[in-house]
Amino acid sequence: MNTKNPIEKMISLLNEQELWTRHLTLKRNEFLKVEGSVDVNLYMVEQGCIRIFVIDEYEEHTIRFGYANNLIAALDSFISEQPSDLYMQALRKSQLKVLAKDRFMGFVHNNDDAFELWYKVLESMVYQQMERERDILTSSPLDRYRRVFNRSPQLFQEVPDKYIASYLRMTPETLSRIKKS
Amino acid sequence: MNTKNPIEKMISLLNEQELWTRHLTLKRNEFLKVEGSVDVNLYMVEQGCIRIFVIDEYEEHTIRFGYANNLIAALDSFISEQPSDLYMQALRKSQLKVLAKDRFMGFVHNNDDAFELWYKVLESMVYQQMERERDILTSSPLDRYRRVFNRSPQLFQEVPDKYIASYLRMTPETLSRIKKS
Repeated sequence: MNTKNPIEKMISLLNEQELWTRHLTLKRNEFLKVEGSVDVNLYMVEQGCIRIFVIDEYEEHTIRFGYANNLIAALDSFISEQPSDLYMQALRKSQLKVLAKDRFMGFVHNNDDAFELWYKVLESMVYQQMERERDILTSSPLDRYRRVFNRSPQLFQEVPDKYIASYLRMTPETLSRIKKS
Repeated sequence: MNTKNPIEKMISLLNEQELWTRHLTLKRNEFLKVEGSVDVNLYMVEQGCIRIFVIDEYEEHTIRFGYANNLIAALDSFISEQPSDLYMQALRKSQLKVLAKDRFMGFVHNNDDAFELWYKVLESMVYQQMERERDILTSSPLDRYRRVFNRSPQLFQEVPDKYIASYLRMTPETLSRIKKS
């Protein structure tokens, strides 16, 4: 199964329908969301890269990236419509297209194909979250690296090593050693 | 938001419609699924407790529990219809109701209310998986314990401490110390 397929199809559909409401340009290091805020937008990254992270006792944990042609959202806040502790930050100058949840859900509920696709997107998100849980629980740094590299080679083109190391829960030194070997 | 609500509603609906195809009784320690197998069933736990885990370099990582009146599935295999490395095992004598995916999806696609509910179930699964990811990434064992205890107090009634400790990624000794304090 290609779990990416429904997400790519959803992006095409949103583009076709010209549903995006606005464009947003973020400077390098600019925040899109901070801890304690509500964010019920879907974002499509046109250029650049967004990192999602949480801060736990002064340590940052990177939990997701969005790079060119990816959808990204503060999913917990998007679903619950409540504040969440996620941060979203541009790793470099980034261009996004923005779609608010109410507009998106209105579209999805009035279009059977879109509703079917949205349910498939949710399924693939559940699947990806399970992969992510398995990544985090993998004890060996080398095995963690291989799992993520095989699944998401593009990540290693788009994101600076410092943040990949944080995502893989290893030091930048360990990541550098693994990449050389 | 009560993310459990759609799951409870789905169970009621499946009961009302008498959609379950069979009952299954598992002895204590009996396996429902092992690594490398496909499992595309939904299970509803009537009595007992099921643990889902993976084995990583001889270490077990507990990733989910299903206890009375909960739905449980090997979600990765259920979604992809491919083999997965999850194990499912009864922690004590357990009684389950079983529903195969093709029957379930047939029902969901022919019933607008059920489809709407299934999409809400998927949303709440994404939300719960994000909570789980945040749990695992929480550095302090005490904070991990508190997060899970506040969200799922029933877990601590249903599951032996040994497995709760595995789920919380701490030693049984650390869990015992936290519970006494």
